[in-house]
Amino acid sequence: MKISLLGGTGDIAEGLVLRWSQAGHEIFIGSRSEEKAQGIASEYIEKLNTLGIEPKIHGMPNAEAAKNSEVIIISIPPEYAASTIEACSDSITDQIVVTPVVSMKKEGKTFLFDPPSQGSSAKEILDVLPETAKLVSAYHNLPAKELANIDEELDYDVVICGDDEEAKEVIKQLTEEMKNLRVLDAGPLEVSAMIEAITPLIVSLNVRHKKHYSVKFV
Amino acid sequence: MKISLLGGTGDIAEGLVLRWSQAGHEIFIGSRSEEKAQGIASEYIEKLNTLGIEPKIHGMPNAEAAKNSEVIIISIPPEYAASTIEACSDSITDQIVVTPVVSMKKEGKTFLFDPPSQGSSAKEILDVLPETAKLVSAYHNLPAKELANIDEELDYDVVICGDDEEAKEVIKQLTEEMKNLRVLDAGPLEVSAMIEAITPLIVSLNVRHKKHYSVKFV
Repeated sequence: MKISLLGGTGDIAEGLVLRWSQAGHEIFIGSRSEEKAQGIASEYIEKLNTLGIEPKIHGMPNAEAAKNSEVIIISIPPEYAASTIEACSDSITDQIVVTPVVSMKKEGKTFLFDPPSQGSSAKEILDVLPETAKLVSAYHNLPAKELANIDEELDYDVVICGDDEEAKEVIKQLTEEMKNLRVLDAGPLEVSAMIEAITPLIVSLNVRHKKHYSVKFV
Repeated sequence: MKISLLGGTGDIAEGLVLRWSQAGHEIFIGSRSEEKAQGIASEYIEKLNTLGIEPKIHGMPNAEAAKNSEVIIISIPPEYAASTIEACSDSITDQIVVTPVVSMKKEGKTFLFDPPSQGSSAKEILDVLPETAKLVSAYHNLPAKELANIDEELDYDVVICGDDEEAKEVIKQLTEEMKNLRVLDAGPLEVSAMIEAITPLIVSLNVRHKKHYSVKFV
């Protein structure tokens, strides 16, 4: 598939780009800075070449990356997510849009869920997307470091939600191409706040216990 | 230890009573109805006798159960939790009080976190407890059925939080007497909303996928 990662230069984007490239997908890395996007694209291409993989990865401005793709991953800090999507709105029509966005605040060593007024980052993003786009909430709770190490099998659950069943099925399949992730569909987009809230809990646990936790439902 | 379970006639109370009795603790089952509390106590005693265990389980009104115990478990539906504690306030001084209380609402097949105005049931309960009591938030996400089957080893994580480190240590030890539960301390009581919010997510997953999920951090 053609997959773009808006703000695809950081955090969980690296692991997604590397793993989906390995699976043969074409990747469009978007950034506010075309130069930065192209720099990161070259870096990932080089990394994959050393593993004997010839990936199709391109760097470009966010709007162009969105336009070129069937699936758009919003890999952007919460305070810029909605405004970035608004700035790309001419490039988003009926694509599947995936939000891993979580808004949190820090109090001492503790991280707390701090959602926007809509109740979740997913619903804030829904408000600025065209109605024809299909929003799926996913990937909030994946540890970036383990994701970026493509030799590592990821024995985690990815809880997803959204109001479009077909879009969730596409994301389930794309996700389960990454070994050994399991997708659990938790229902409509309304559920997203509860999935997002797990992230600051995990970060709090990580800080206290010096771990990189993810979550499994057993 | 002397442990009371207010509203100890239902849900997760059964498993806690059976497992802590097996570990040798003295249990005070509280209920609004003394007769009901004594009936349930007899039932649990009989169940344990057939396993060769001679438990110390007593049934009595909630206030009396609280007064007799060092650890008080609030096993009460969210809408009655605060008022029950207020009605027992003369019996609660410096005990450790444990809240597994979660407030949720149902929309179709989906369960959503629906906290009181304080942000979490733990903070609502904190508001009505005497300042000398030590509140720990725990046991929100244990599946009642598996807990009540005392032959079953529980390979789950119990995420706890609270502002009193010693009280959390006591609850950690009591919890880890139940095989193979692992306690993860997530920090201050402020964290409770994020732990409570996992429960409706699990219930939503259970309904959709016909499971009895609990959670592990891996």
